[in-house]
Amino acid sequence: MNPNINELRTKSGSSADLFGKDFLLTWEKSREALETNLNVAEDLKMLRDKNISPRCFDSGLAISQFRDNSTRTRFSFASAANLLGLAVQDLDEGKSQIAHGETVRETSAMISFLSDIIGIRDDMFLGAGNTYMREVGSALDEAFADGVLPQRPGIINLQCDIDHPTQSMADLLHLKNVFGSLENLKGKKIAMTWAYSPSYGKPLSVPQGIIGLMTRFGMEVDLAYPEGYGLIPEVVELSGKQAMVSGGSFRIVNSMEEAFSGADIVYPKSWAPFHVMQRRTELLRKSDHDGLKGLEKECLANNARFKGWECTEEKMKLTKDGKALYMHCLPADISGVSCKEGEVTATVFERYRVPLYKQAGFKPYIIAAMMLTNRFENPTVLLNDLCGNKQRMNRCYR
Amino acid sequence: MNPNINELRTKSGSSADLFGKDFLLTWEKSREALETNLNVAEDLKMLRDKNISPRCFDSGLAISQFRDNSTRTRFSFASAANLLGLAVQDLDEGKSQIAHGETVRETSAMISFLSDIIGIRDDMFLGAGNTYMREVGSALDEAFADGVLPQRPGIINLQCDIDHPTQSMADLLHLKNVFGSLENLKGKKIAMTWAYSPSYGKPLSVPQGIIGLMTRFGMEVDLAYPEGYGLIPEVVELSGKQAMVSGGSFRIVNSMEEAFSGADIVYPKSWAPFHVMQRRTELLRKSDHDGLKGLEKECLANNARFKGWECTEEKMKLTKDGKALYMHCLPADISGVSCKEGEVTATVFERYRVPLYKQAGFKPYIIAAMMLTNRFENPTVLLNDLCGNKQRMNRCYR
Amino acid sequence: MNPNINELRTKSGSSADLFGKDFLLTWEKSREALETNLNVAEDLKMLRDKNISPRCFDSGLAISQFRDNSTRTRFSFASAANLLGLAVQDLDEGKSQIAHGETVRETSAMISFLSDIIGIRDDMFLGAGNTYMREVGSALDEAFADGVLPQRPGIINLQCDIDHPTQSMADLLHLKNVFGSLENLKGKKIAMTWAYSPSYGKPLSVPQGIIGLMTRFGMEVDLAYPEGYGLIPEVVELSGKQAMVSGGSFRIVNSMEEAFSGADIVYPKSWAPFHVMQRRTELLRKSDHDGLKGLEKECLANNARFKGWECTEEKMKLTKDGKALYMHCLPADISGVSCKEGEVTATVFERYRVPLYKQAGFKPYIIAAMMLTNRFENPTVLLNDLCGNKQRMNRCYR
Repeated sequence: MNPNINELRTKSGSSADLFGKDFLLTWEKSREALETNLNVAEDLKMLRDKNISPRCFDSGLAISQFRDNSTRTRFSFASAANLLGLAVQDLDEGKSQIAHGETVRETSAMISFLSDIIGIRDDMFLGAGNTYMREVGSALDEAFADGVLPQRPGIINLQCDIDHPTQSMADLLHLKNVFGSLENLKGKKIAMTWAYSPSYGKPLSVPQGIIGLMTRFGMEVDLAYPEGYGLIPEVVELSGKQAMVSGGSFRIVNSMEEAFSGADIVYPKSWAPFHVMQRRTELLRKSDHDGLKGLEKECLANNARFKGWECTEEKMKLTKDGKALYMHCLPADISGVSCKEGEVTATVFERYRVPLYKQAGFKPYIIAAMMLTNRFENPTVLLNDLCGNKQRMNRCYR
Repeated sequence: MNPNINELRTKSGSSADLFGKDFLLTWEKSREALETNLNVAEDLKMLRDKNISPRCFDSGLAISQFRDNSTRTRFSFASAANLLGLAVQDLDEGKSQIAHGETVRETSAMISFLSDIIGIRDDMFLGAGNTYMREVGSALDEAFADGVLPQRPGIINLQCDIDHPTQSMADLLHLKNVFGSLENLKGKKIAMTWAYSPSYGKPLSVPQGIIGLMTRFGMEVDLAYPEGYGLIPEVVELSGKQAMVSGGSFRIVNSMEEAFSGADIVYPKSWAPFHVMQRRTELLRKSDHDGLKGLEKECLANNARFKGWECTEEKMKLTKDGKALYMHCLPADISGVSCKEGEVTATVFERYRVPLYKQAGFKPYIIAAMMLTNRFENPTVLLNDLCGNKQRMNRCYR
Repeated sequence: MNPNINELRTKSGSSADLFGKDFLLTWEKSREALETNLNVAEDLKMLRDKNISPRCFDSGLAISQFRDNSTRTRFSFASAANLLGLAVQDLDEGKSQIAHGETVRETSAMISFLSDIIGIRDDMFLGAGNTYMREVGSALDEAFADGVLPQRPGIINLQCDIDHPTQSMADLLHLKNVFGSLENLKGKKIAMTWAYSPSYGKPLSVPQGIIGLMTRFGMEVDLAYPEGYGLIPEVVELSGKQAMVSGGSFRIVNSMEEAFSGADIVYPKSWAPFHVMQRRTELLRKSDHDGLKGLEKECLANNARFKGWECTEEKMKLTKDGKALYMHCLPADISGVSCKEGEVTATVFERYRVPLYKQAGFKPYIIAAMMLTNRFENPTVLLNDLCGNKQRMNRCYR
């Protein structure tokens, strides 16, 4: 295989808003920055697909801190780090504790002397996850300003209580690929809807991430949920404003059918109501196990009233030409497969298995692009160098 | 140190049957493929011994999934991956569960977007371990065919219910080194015999791996065990056929003394009877803890009837010139050292400690060779390139 | 950034006493060896600060064995390994067991076939930690002599019952930086004093490491503790002798105030009394949980008699110009912050936060220097090569 260098020339674009900046919420980033992230991710994927190593670190640590269980995000993060030449080091403080200010300040400095990237997943506590990331960020800023750290590691939000940017950006890249361009997403209708699940306490970050991102690309965004399953009000408000600016729309409806009607894309996914997550956080803080059990019971009973919120073949027929793209962050609760009654019927899921897996496959590249643009000011130059570097062929399937 | 390039020229041979193929059972591989694996392993060892780095991956992940505890196989796998330039990422799903089809399918794809190798150890459940590996393999095939994966990671069996190919191939390489060549193994007698151990539930994969491999090299293979301690019938049958083809022999005897008699090599090692492992698997599936305790008690009582199956100095005297090579996959149950009464007496073990450790020392190279030949079509060219590459000196003990 | 090569020329010095030698106790190393370690650490820090990668291993494993919890030493070890190009592989045998001879012998060989460095933290058992490291070392010597290992991995003591050399050497490098040179440390007074903590069983390795190291550099070392909180007698005796040789002094006093008086440096830190650690080790060996609880209760009650041993603003005023350098290995028990009453008041700690963090920041480089000098005979040549190697620029913040 002898890749054509000209063909490989990249146009990743500028990384203003990314270089040296944490990636915590997509709506804190300019549209240009988001496009750069997508471009770099695509370039990295192209290099890997052509068996050219995009390694740009000789050494360096990418610290992962998962304050909740995770397999796919963990592997996406590890894959991204490895692709660029960083080694992963886990920080495992114990999963349930909410760290206190002083400890965060000190630990953040102590783990960062030779670290480049810190990826954090902290989605258990409403009002705490994103706050925690910013606390770490402030501690790093301070340690860097004080000359304690030779560099200021970049933070990547691997899911918090507010946003799930590595997911929503991977979803956006999937949409770009399916529909041909970001431009083509204008006017497309996406139904981000609640769906029934026999579990409880699922975070709000995916639906919030979707409405907070897709409203910026001129899409017609319908958010649908049964009464009482609202999201964080500020994110909802922001999504409405963004839709106006981008020339799209944002609506809240209380019917899955209404959201599906004429949709180009559907994203049915369960989550816990905002007010339940608030009560849950209080109970978790107090380690009130009886209270948590009671809340779970109450919440599951309430969920059970909405078993009709399932993505079925019938509902799919309501979508644009009956052929909307079905999306999910995985794993999905598939009726009759992973649970008795769930978010989606087996036939719908099966029909979309390949696009779903491709959707997931963008995540390592999105994370790698976040790492790269955080540490390299001019990704275009770097990537073009890598493209032309025949010495950096990784594997030779001769 | 200035290694002589000519002296380093390798003749690893062709890797047909290895490139892009999983390594699950040695008897699925041609004899030529097995020899290539040994040659590549020896070349890698030579490079390392001469302080030349055989790193051939610029980045990449080697996923390890240990569904049973392990220190030495874990370190062998990590060493092999590191030697070639791959980073290890553990997949820890919880040790005792038997994963269901849908989860296997999805997880296999999700962890593989940027992975090169998946090493799996799954020896707890008779009828399940090897099956699980093939399930992962099918999922990967499908994901690759569907364009979900840019490459199809190779699977390496790090021990299953049927075979333990990294062990048996390391054992074969040890024999090749001790006896000078594979050719010299023809007509040599190896006694693969059961031995008493005060523990229970040891897998059948080592004795099965040994009889399934050594019968292909013209050896006289004696399998010895007390009545009731039989192996999987299909593997026994296959070993007999292979012995006929290779010009060796395969016998089952019920006496350790008979097997040791005139043997060039002895491999005394405990295992659980086939039918006990079958009952155990059923009980594990049902999480029947009382049943498992009862079975353990029954099995240990039965074991105790065969405490005479110990590798003693007396029995060693029965072997060829009293000097047979003693082998074990380690750790051994050493009488008076690691247990009161066990598989081998302390003096026999001690006399063979150095060859035993050397035997174990081949495993990282065997695994590295499995990784390399899975990903590179022409290992000879690659290794000769590496030999000549003075730039790739790893450490300089100047 | 275009670093001036001449400016980067290093003078790391000779590594006699380091190359191929384990780093277990600072007092086993010549003063020249200690200076080489400091020089190499500073060179590595300079390279990293100038964004030049000091990677000198193409592959290789650094094994970490933590027989006690640790976040900062774990990250320091991982950072050091990564900086030089080694991958970390954890050996997790279970934390509380004291391994037996035979197992240590075998496991040490089994994990070392392709390993370069083994870092061990074992500080739980008085009389056992350092002994264990030497047991590992003997096993490695034997395996190397027997031809089992192609190289003999180096052992780094990451804290034992006797010494904590990575800490004390990082502390020394901090002092060298604060006071300008090792020469300038002559005649400086350092107060290594016990301090009150509401916890129990803290190891003796930090105070022992400090008195065992600083007495070699002509410092006036005061060791202060309440009656009954003595250290291992041999280390105390040795410190006295070393002070005489180096032209410094060594005193034991039973008053924090007396030690602080006129001190240039203070290091107030809690530890358990020697005889308590001895009794604790006996109880741990016997798994006597009731005995351990009783001992803890007794010890905490005794500790509580000495709450006056707190590093306060008043006591700091007793030091040289009231401005002694405050040191701690972190984390400190800060009164009113991490505990009600502790080792140091919040205002003192806060005033020294930046130097404390800088002190901690030397540890990864000290460990990296221990790794490098263990494997490379001539670090000066190696480091000068690395300095001049523009190809090895790591990150490009263009």
